[in-house]
Amino acid sequence: MDQLLGPIKKEIDLFERRLDEMLQSDVEMVHQVARYMATLKGKRLRPALVVLSAKATGLWNGGIIDAGVGVEMIHAATMVHDDVIDGASTRRGKASVNAKWDDHIAVLMGDFLLARALSILVGLGNQRALAVVSHATERLSQGEIYEFQIGLQGDTREESYFGMAGDKTASLISASCKIGPLLVGALDPVVDALGAYGEFLGLAFQVADDVLDYTGDAGALGKPVGHDLRQGKITLPLIRALAAAPAEKRQRVEALLRRQENCEADWRHIVSFVEEHGGVCSASEAAHHFAAQAEKSLQILEPSVARSILETAVHLVVDRDS
Amino acid sequence: MDQLLGPIKKEIDLFERRLDEMLQSDVEMVHQVARYMATLKGKRLRPALVVLSAKATGLWNGGIIDAGVGVEMIHAATMVHDDVIDGASTRRGKASVNAKWDDHIAVLMGDFLLARALSILVGLGNQRALAVVSHATERLSQGEIYEFQIGLQGDTREESYFGMAGDKTASLISASCKIGPLLVGALDPVVDALGAYGEFLGLAFQVADDVLDYTGDAGALGKPVGHDLRQGKITLPLIRALAAAPAEKRQRVEALLRRQENCEADWRHIVSFVEEHGGVCSASEAAHHFAAQAEKSLQILEPSVARSILETAVHLVVDRDS
Repeated sequence: MDQLLGPIKKEIDLFERRLDEMLQSDVEMVHQVARYMATLKGKRLRPALVVLSAKATGLWNGGIIDAGVGVEMIHAATMVHDDVIDGASTRRGKASVNAKWDDHIAVLMGDFLLARALSILVGLGNQRALAVVSHATERLSQGEIYEFQIGLQGDTREESYFGMAGDKTASLISASCKIGPLLVGALDPVVDALGAYGEFLGLAFQVADDVLDYTGDAGALGKPVGHDLRQGKITLPLIRALAAAPAEKRQRVEALLRRQENCEADWRHIVSFVEEHGGVCSASEAAHHFAAQAEKSLQILEPSVARSILETAVHLVVDRDS
Repeated sequence: MDQLLGPIKKEIDLFERRLDEMLQSDVEMVHQVARYMATLKGKRLRPALVVLSAKATGLWNGGIIDAGVGVEMIHAATMVHDDVIDGASTRRGKASVNAKWDDHIAVLMGDFLLARALSILVGLGNQRALAVVSHATERLSQGEIYEFQIGLQGDTREESYFGMAGDKTASLISASCKIGPLLVGALDPVVDALGAYGEFLGLAFQVADDVLDYTGDAGALGKPVGHDLRQGKITLPLIRALAAAPAEKRQRVEALLRRQENCEADWRHIVSFVEEHGGVCSASEAAHHFAAQAEKSLQILEPSVARSILETAVHLVVDRDS
């Protein structure tokens, strides 16, 4: 991510300082948990996108940094809730909020971050930017419930997966790319181009993530291969392998997926099945396809340093190993 | 609540229809849970306040109904999360969302309701109204964490209790009373008067609720006497009794409160202690004091049917038995 953050170091430093301020609270416990969360620093992908997509318009305004803080806090809120939902005990190598405190605090802290993020964004006074972010937040939570439903119903349709991935992941990434241009008053085609860039980038990001669940380095990822699969998540590599496999092999895997509990050998069988029937390759191609679409969306913008970095971001997202 | 809702039946019917529409979703599971939640109909206090406080200004506009839907959805979101946090298996005599589905769905559904509520409010295009609601939502989650902290630290200071009650309960009730006037374009002193009314009404509501925990009819309340106490909540009746009791008796109760686990006899001892040392009477007086302040806040408004109903609401809130 250094290739992304390096050229906008000044803005990211401002962002970090402002985020720190915005995490303060008079309630000791809120303050404590927020302090701790600040040490679990994420990749800062979303605030970087806010800054870069604003810069790519050739315009700038002081509210951009706050907008970055807002989207990062929404992202952090969903991460805290996700850890509760997944019963995850670690995040980025440290104890998760639910593990260090408990589920109650994690649920409330997520709500607090979400509410404060929206207050910050309301403060920017831009109706359209706000509508974009609140709609994205709605899609995000809806997408997570959709993901749950897909797992529960054993739904292996590609359209369900893409609907879910769009809502769960692309929504906030796309919003991050749209609010900068909206806040600086860019023209509609520019706003739309950057929004489309973000939507494709988000899909590429999610698909790449799902490929890593089958191929990734357990150490670098901080979770074992097939981790999401074990949690009942039906993702593109599996969907593509099921579509390609002969009926008999497919039915055996479908039967395993329907079972309430599976043993380690079952999971290993599914992971090999996905590899064997080209699920990993095919999903990886899909990620690159979305990446290419993202890059193409930028073509209407004037060439600029920011635009080049956004182009680089596309490759970073699909070719990462964690 | 019929005294409150009866005179605005037309608006409440519109509200119910609009809420129904706003709970729809393309994701089957979201739709299902939302349908179920619609059957756990609350008191509709907040939307009634939105409607009445708008009417009390003598003005009206079509956005008021949506504003009522927005605050009711925020309230519903916090209820769903509260049930997860408290491990409550019932709500209004039916299975809670976490009991009927599970904690995961309840956490995500709360997030979805919150996000959709904010989308609805953003759609009204009134920056000040939006700032009021997003700030209230922030106070609300902060207040819940504060409540947790108070219980954990065994903090029996009245100022902590009132700070918490203001944030946790009065925030959204006050916002409900302010957004109507803001949306119809009422003058600032009118907006502020209704905001103050809501803040006092909210405090009266919370204190009355806490009194009911010590005196209420278990059947009507749907929870046993001392239920909140058992969950570690330190509320005004207890705080006032501790302040009034002789040192030795106070210390015994404080020792019980510090214990990790208490038996049934301990809880009964605390409940009698609170009654005996005037905690119930004193807290009840405080609720009436706030109620009187709420009523007084309305004095700058022209007399109207809506104003009279708001005055009645004050008494309904402090004199309710469930």
